Amino acid sequence: MFRHQKQLQFEVKVDRPDPMLARQVQEVLGGQFGEMTVMMQYLFQGFNCRGEEKYKDMLMDIGTEEIGHVEMLCSLISQLLDGASPEDQAEAAKDPQIAAIMGGVNPQHLLVSGLGGLPTNSNGVPWNGAYIVASGNLLADMRSNLHAESQGRLQVARLYHMTTDEGVRATFRKMLARDRYHQYQWMAAIAELEEKNGVVVPASFPPEAEKEAQPQAYEFWNLSEGSESSEGLWATGSAPDGSGEFVYIQEPVAKGQVPNPSIPSDKLHHDLDLTKLTSKE
Amino acid sequence: MFRHQKQLQFEVKVDRPDPMLARQVQEVLGGQFGEMTVMMQYLFQGFNCRGEEKYKDMLMDIGTEEIGHVEMLCSLISQLLDGASPEDQAEAAKDPQIAAIMGGVNPQHLLVSGLGGLPTNSNGVPWNGAYIVASGNLLADMRSNLHAESQGRLQVARLYHMTTDEGVRATFRKMLARDRYHQYQWMAAIAELEEKNGVVVPASFPPEAEKEAQPQAYEFWNLSEGSESSEGLWATGSAPDGSGEFVYIQEPVAKGQVPNPSIPSDKLHHDLDLTKLTSKE
Amino acid sequence: MFRHQKQLQFEVKVDRPDPMLARQVQEVLGGQFGEMTVMMQYLFQGFNCRGEEKYKDMLMDIGTEEIGHVEMLCSLISQLLDGASPEDQAEAAKDPQIAAIMGGVNPQHLLVSGLGGLPTNSNGVPWNGAYIVASGNLLADMRSNLHAESQGRLQVARLYHMTTDEGVRATFRKMLARDRYHQYQWMAAIAELEEKNGVVVPASFPPEAEKEAQPQAYEFWNLSEGSESSEGLWATGSAPDGSGEFVYIQEPVAKGQVPNPSIPSDKLHHDLDLTKLTSKE
Amino acid sequence: MFRHQKQLQFEVKVDRPDPMLARQVQEVLGGQFGEMTVMMQYLFQGFNCRGEEKYKDMLMDIGTEEIGHVEMLCSLISQLLDGASPEDQAEAAKDPQIAAIMGGVNPQHLLVSGLGGLPTNSNGVPWNGAYIVASGNLLADMRSNLHAESQGRLQVARLYHMTTDEGVRATFRKMLARDRYHQYQWMAAIAELEEKNGVVVPASFPPEAEKEAQPQAYEFWNLSEGSESSEGLWATGSAPDGSGEFVYIQEPVAKGQVPNPSIPSDKLHHDLDLTKLTSKE
Amino acid sequence: MFRHQKQLQFEVKVDRPDPMLARQVQEVLGGQFGEMTVMMQYLFQGFNCRGEEKYKDMLMDIGTEEIGHVEMLCSLISQLLDGASPEDQAEAAKDPQIAAIMGGVNPQHLLVSGLGGLPTNSNGVPWNGAYIVASGNLLADMRSNLHAESQGRLQVARLYHMTTDEGVRATFRKMLARDRYHQYQWMAAIAELEEKNGVVVPASFPPEAEKEAQPQAYEFWNLSEGSESSEGLWATGSAPDGSGEFVYIQEPVAKGQVPNPSIPSDKLHHDLDLTKLTSKE
Amino acid sequence: MFRHQKQLQFEVKVDRPDPMLARQVQEVLGGQFGEMTVMMQYLFQGFNCRGEEKYKDMLMDIGTEEIGHVEMLCSLISQLLDGASPEDQAEAAKDPQIAAIMGGVNPQHLLVSGLGGLPTNSNGVPWNGAYIVASGNLLADMRSNLHAESQGRLQVARLYHMTTDEGVRATFRKMLARDRYHQYQWMAAIAELEEKNGVVVPASFPPEAEKEAQPQAYEFWNLSEGSESSEGLWATGSAPDGSGEFVYIQEPVAKGQVPNPSIPSDKLHHDLDLTKLTSKE
Repeated sequence: MFRHQKQLQFEVKVDRPDPMLARQVQEVLGGQFGEMTVMMQYLFQGFNCRGEEKYKDMLMDIGTEEIGHVEMLCSLISQLLDGASPEDQAEAAKDPQIAAIMGGVNPQHLLVSGLGGLPTNSNGVPWNGAYIVASGNLLADMRSNLHAESQGRLQVARLYHMTTDEGVRATFRKMLARDRYHQYQWMAAIAELEEKNGVVVPASFPPEAEKEAQPQAYEFWNLSEGSESSEGLWATGSAPDGSGEFVYIQEPVAKGQVPNPSIPSDKLHHDLDLTKLTSKE
Repeated sequence: MFRHQKQLQFEVKVDRPDPMLARQVQEVLGGQFGEMTVMMQYLFQGFNCRGEEKYKDMLMDIGTEEIGHVEMLCSLISQLLDGASPEDQAEAAKDPQIAAIMGGVNPQHLLVSGLGGLPTNSNGVPWNGAYIVASGNLLADMRSNLHAESQGRLQVARLYHMTTDEGVRATFRKMLARDRYHQYQWMAAIAELEEKNGVVVPASFPPEAEKEAQPQAYEFWNLSEGSESSEGLWATGSAPDGSGEFVYIQEPVAKGQVPNPSIPSDKLHHDLDLTKLTSKE
Repeated sequence: MFRHQKQLQFEVKVDRPDPMLARQVQEVLGGQFGEMTVMMQYLFQGFNCRGEEKYKDMLMDIGTEEIGHVEMLCSLISQLLDGASPEDQAEAAKDPQIAAIMGGVNPQHLLVSGLGGLPTNSNGVPWNGAYIVASGNLLADMRSNLHAESQGRLQVARLYHMTTDEGVRATFRKMLARDRYHQYQWMAAIAELEEKNGVVVPASFPPEAEKEAQPQAYEFWNLSEGSESSEGLWATGSAPDGSGEFVYIQEPVAKGQVPNPSIPSDKLHHDLDLTKLTSKE
Repeated sequence: MFRHQKQLQFEVKVDRPDPMLARQVQEVLGGQFGEMTVMMQYLFQGFNCRGEEKYKDMLMDIGTEEIGHVEMLCSLISQLLDGASPEDQAEAAKDPQIAAIMGGVNPQHLLVSGLGGLPTNSNGVPWNGAYIVASGNLLADMRSNLHAESQGRLQVARLYHMTTDEGVRATFRKMLARDRYHQYQWMAAIAELEEKNGVVVPASFPPEAEKEAQPQAYEFWNLSEGSESSEGLWATGSAPDGSGEFVYIQEPVAKGQVPNPSIPSDKLHHDLDLTKLTSKE
Repeated sequence: MFRHQKQLQFEVKVDRPDPMLARQVQEVLGGQFGEMTVMMQYLFQGFNCRGEEKYKDMLMDIGTEEIGHVEMLCSLISQLLDGASPEDQAEAAKDPQIAAIMGGVNPQHLLVSGLGGLPTNSNGVPWNGAYIVASGNLLADMRSNLHAESQGRLQVARLYHMTTDEGVRATFRKMLARDRYHQYQWMAAIAELEEKNGVVVPASFPPEAEKEAQPQAYEFWNLSEGSESSEGLWATGSAPDGSGEFVYIQEPVAKGQVPNPSIPSDKLHHDLDLTKLTSKE
Repeated sequence: MFRHQKQLQFEVKVDRPDPMLARQVQEVLGGQFGEMTVMMQYLFQGFNCRGEEKYKDMLMDIGTEEIGHVEMLCSLISQLLDGASPEDQAEAAKDPQIAAIMGGVNPQHLLVSGLGGLPTNSNGVPWNGAYIVASGNLLADMRSNLHAESQGRLQVARLYHMTTDEGVRATFRKMLARDRYHQYQWMAAIAELEEKNGVVVPASFPPEAEKEAQPQAYEFWNLSEGSESSEGLWATGSAPDGSGEFVYIQEPVAKGQVPNPSIPSDKLHHDLDLTKLTSKE
């Protein structure tokens, strides 16, 4: 069960409204890697967590914090929209600067939300549940979490240069600092899990279970012309878990068959030559 | 520019058809972490790559390989569907086993694709471009790649137990081995980039730029009852880059204001008390 | 079966084109609460209606009217786009006013529809079937209808201030008047149904069937700090159907267990401690 | 800012697992009118609320409660899935009952979430932000809330008959009771707002502003053959706010023009007769 | 403006209910090529049609007919669902045949629509506006229409074998006959337009406007190993409009550059080597 | 299996960056009829192709070429975005021309992709798998292919006028020429298939199988007022396959019943009159 307190986690104060910026900020609220994503992802991982309590408790701590980040971004967007009005569009015909702003404004901030944050990205595409994952494999999921915080912080860093408003920038700096911590947090969790079970997900399907397919676990196939790719650590040396040596396949040769699927039943109403029919009838 | 050769990368042979399994396999073809995702993600990262050629070349090598994996999975699904017919449904009324199979079959394999693979997941939800990312920050993207290969291999490992067909299992073992290599590959690339620029994304927004927000980069906020979360490496010791010490905030206190947004213009047709109107008019 | 007559239901005449406004008007054509939504919602409710003919007939009357409203909005948008051309974008580099307009134009009005209305909202997101509902419970659905007309009229009212074009405004006034009637219409239908069956949906799962859960039907849980919420009619007095008295729970206490889910089968390839395995094997 | 406590709001205990039911329960977790919808809708309405504190506080109370309802449903689904394994599918070939169950199971519960709840509906379609609304008009939004609770309770009532498991039914009874209260709650709020501002949304665009379009606000257009629709309260008597009398238009006549749009610029590459070109060049 | 009459266009009578078939029939109601698609596509093409009245009138004739086809399919699905009940699921545990049926039933037919048709496909994915097109180019759009009727008739032909119910089959035969006419209809319209303007869309960007790119308009590039593709009419002989001769490029050579994009501004927070920075600062 | 070579198929050189144009070009990369669509459509048709090798080989030739077209468009978009920076937005407040450009820029080109192409359309809507079809019926699918190339070439022709940049225009001319060839190609394939099997899809459900529904295959129903539609080839003369004569139904009469569905089980919790209950109990 959850509880809410009225204060925001951190102060969010905007020096002056900027409705174009409000549109861009939507990306880090309702975009692929926005706060709604990390909030829902951590909550679902926490709700579904089975086993050791320390992971579940940690996921609930941070998932709960992220609900408050969605709250903070709604407050930020509301402030950036303060004073905007549908009448601005009617005036756009007379004034290029207002027209320009209207061009860059999200029409739904005026028409749909009445100057509030929307559960959508910077192009108005609704947030959806396929942005998140909670797989029941902790290492897989924490790699997702580290990744989400990386993309999220990258986007906030880019947003930072879209304004010179010191109030907005102060808010972004706090988000950048929290996102830095959250990257540290998932790195630490990942290190702990890799230490325990090994670096490959899932550890429970180990190399020996792959049997005859073993060589394929160490080969780099050079399928794009040029061999600049041979210069990376992925092409030479040992696998990170020391289980084998990488092999750079300079001239890869296909090992499979040429597919030759059978002609299906005429009840599928294809237009293939039925004299070659091979399916059950 | 690309070229195609007729042989599959690896052999794909199914011992006997299994249309229910064909539905499940769609998850690793057109699902959130299926082969379409890694194919399109690596290709877009490669197409958009600016700067050092070895990363671009490597992304094109693996992106090109993944097109062939989509091809292999379509071949697998086609074989699992061999001999299926719309008439099976008409017979379901008479035979519980056939009825059960029809219940578990993707109707679109009969009605829409005529026994071929679909660009959708195991529930028929179409693949979409919001599954992928190509951000222009190599470390962020390679974390995404490592994550995608982790979830992908996890799903194949789960699928492995859904069949006892040795032909299908042999194909899955090759996929598991390749996904293991691809995890190694991204780990190696990540290690190289972290070594060069530091572990936080983006490195170019460094701790000192966060100024007064610095403390927030090391604090764990215990917002869920209980303190089991204090037992992890994320709660004690140093940040992975040694830039500071973690602090476990046992009783976190909100630091922000209570939001108090202004009443908007009456042209937004809210039903708030206009005598409190504070917006521009 | 349906028939079409060439005249529009009401006159739609635009004084002068305004391609930016055309983009905004898309919200009330193909948005969440646009005319496509009420058209498809009423038609599906009517097509699926079982039982008393007067509801079905009424739904078909209004659903049929709404097809004509989609037609009117397409005519409105076409007129707002009259004379727009792809060349405008080429000229944007020279003229800030044209650049501003191009920034605010929906590119698909030029590239995709060739100056016609699109089945999308003001941000170009396609209309989809999950905007509507036809549940087979009349009271539930008519509450949806009242709600849709409320949001729809609100958006038209906001749009009204986005233009000073008297032709456009006259069209909007007719839409506002019709949306007012449609609100009256659903209120009347709701009143009739509530009178007959009671105010709670579904009436056929009555209070007594909830047995031991009865207290929960009258409690307001104060889960957000502060008790301003105690001042509303929802917190004091009787339920609208007089079945009980509201109770304001000032300090709510959780009544459930701490969840403790079992460790699943190792075939799911989690990374939990298998020595704690509790699932079937 | 939010906090979490480990106990669920109400007890959720399942007598025995039922993976097919787990799939159906997804509808009230991640469907159009599931708990994710009311949670996100109330939170966004609360976050964006401007003006009187009692509404904002009330929205935050109930939005915060609903986060806990998502938590409860994840717990319910996890328990219904306990013991399920990918191996079940491999055994389906031998046993019609197991095959039938596999046909009815959501494959993503095995492959994607590892026996946890998913942010999707009963057909696996991801939850998305276009299910919710926060418009800044309180009366419009509370009508949406009443509607959402009506559809939600209807679906739980239907689910109730899908099982005879007393543990599951006890959970559903609590949800039915809470959803009854929530309907009461929004009815009370609506009554208060209608009392203050009138019954039409938005009240701030009043009848007199519609001027010449006034008659259209009271006419029922009989556009579907038959006049059973004349028997309802929407066709006779006065508008609910007494502003006028309804008129049943038995034989409606179209009042608009036949649209005659101009031929666009040849730069749009239509294939119309350019000799009729009327657009600007 | 539209009108509705109570009779269906054709009789729809089902001999006995079949809820599994109801799920499959959803594909031709709300799928990519279902009746909702042709209805909305023809209506939007008609609403947006500029120029010669005979095309607009024809589009409105058939678009109006298709609304009635959606109506017919809703009636068909309602009849197939007659008598289904949520209790069936509760009985599935006891009876494999009922379990099998429940596995194959769309849960939303019970939970969401209360035994009515849904605006979704056979997997429950909502219909969306991106299934349709109305481009303002008649030839392009009529090719789309011919295509949609081709896929639609193919799916109905496949559905035909999924049942032996003579009532259902009689309905399908009428749909097959209508879809045959509609294919004829679009073929005739296409022939007329090709005769007038030429076979390439858009005709208004003629070969001479392509200037130096001319050779590319006649070359088949053999980019997949093997030259079986040289055996088709696309590889030899003349273009259908006689404007040139096809050339089969047996060994295609890439003609473009190796892309070498510049390093962007450091404000984008990539992790490329900034010493190679070439973008504006 | 696939291979990549570093050179683009054709040269892509932009004279000067134009970030607004980059947004518009997204339509032909990731829109409904963009290069991602034809690439994925031809590849899926090729992967799933059963039967005659010449079609499969041809589909793989062109599908492989289209991967390279996606590559070319990413290169084009990257060049159009060269030098763009988040700082531009901060400067928009001062300069109307920059503000106008920012209004017209896709914010995700700055925030999400770091100046690279996105798998989305010109409004930022993600590409999805429901844009494509591979049905297993060659004639149906090749009609889709002809249609896709028609819409695609139309959009490029419109884009052509959005710029005066000769580098961009030269790229577009090559695309226009290739899209012309691809239209020829599918016309040739269609002609071959129609010659072999007849013009109606699917040919395997022939007129005689429609039995009593035959008349419906030749009737034009005049459901929209006015009879301009009688002037087209679809209304008079013979069907293209000579199987019958068209009949123009000037005053169409509905032939079906008035639907009268039964009242469902009370377990569905409708609010209909249960005394009229007709469903099984």
